[in-house]
Amino acid sequence: MAHINLSEGLPGISAGFAFRPETAKPMRELAHILLHEPGSLTPGERELIATFVSSRNCTTFCALSHGAAAANHLGDATIVEKVKANFLAAPVSAKLKSLLVIAGKVQQDGKLVTASDVSAARAQGATDREIHDTVLIAAAFSMYNRYVDGLGTWQPSDPAMYAQMGKHLAEEGYITPSIRQPVGA
Amino acid sequence: MAHINLSEGLPGISAGFAFRPETAKPMRELAHILLHEPGSLTPGERELIATFVSSRNCTTFCALSHGAAAANHLGDATIVEKVKANFLAAPVSAKLKSLLVIAGKVQQDGKLVTASDVSAARAQGATDREIHDTVLIAAAFSMYNRYVDGLGTWQPSDPAMYAQMGKHLAEEGYITPSIRQPVGA
Repeated sequence: MAHINLSEGLPGISAGFAFRPETAKPMRELAHILLHEPGSLTPGERELIATFVSSRNCTTFCALSHGAAAANHLGDATIVEKVKANFLAAPVSAKLKSLLVIAGKVQQDGKLVTASDVSAARAQGATDREIHDTVLIAAAFSMYNRYVDGLGTWQPSDPAMYAQMGKHLAEEGYITPSIRQPVGA
Repeated sequence: MAHINLSEGLPGISAGFAFRPETAKPMRELAHILLHEPGSLTPGERELIATFVSSRNCTTFCALSHGAAAANHLGDATIVEKVKANFLAAPVSAKLKSLLVIAGKVQQDGKLVTASDVSAARAQGATDREIHDTVLIAAAFSMYNRYVDGLGTWQPSDPAMYAQMGKHLAEEGYITPSIRQPVGA
């Protein structure tokens, strides 16, 4: 049971968003800009960063929903599992690996990021904008994950639900809710 | 030196906001709603929660700027120092102490919040909305702090700069920048 009176049947962050639409609006907009709007990192790469951070925070709802969005963008779910298990050995670019090193440090504490981490990413072709967005995606998921977990939201594990959500997120982004009705309603 | 090419003389989050105005907009809006708009927790109490989380994350810029905003709202800077040092012994309400317990857990990991923490807050009169907003303030500052630290922003320690910023934040909130020009320009 959630810690406060959230709508039954709304999973994860959708329950918090329904409880407080005022704060949901900027939170949705931030995710949309960071993950869905055009950028030099593909949406699939950015969803992998979000999935990686959520997985390290052990936030089931975010790891599975953004993992499903990443799989949808990339057309391959095995890459997502490989990034979660051991990103340095995963079939992703050297640039993305160097950005995941930075994201993994921000997930713990932003002060852990070193000039050398940033130089390594630059050596792989990462731009300042890509480094900025990596830091902010990792920081933002440090928020979304804590929000979902701290409210004690319902975090189902049914893969079919996440597959549907991932398709919506990959196609439509984050401004419009991917779940409008309580699951099972 | 910051990790990426940020405007010199812009301290803390203002440098990240100037670098990427698109993401600054929803991040400012979220802070404004959570900390400045009317609510049953006073702006001073909400700024204390933000200061407490930023202090536990050792993010100088956020701890000092929100501490200055809290001091401005409360008309007393010593309360801010006492909350940072030992909130359970600070001269704040039992309700705020119970919410700071929740915020302190969210700062570490949202999953640490227990039903018993939430019952204790309810027993002191906390509403679902207040518990929700406490969780989200703590989660949001887990983002802002990591953003400020992860970019390696300049975080000055001059109290006069923070006093001026705290006055602006307490009076105007977060939509309009409190620092428009590089410091010293």
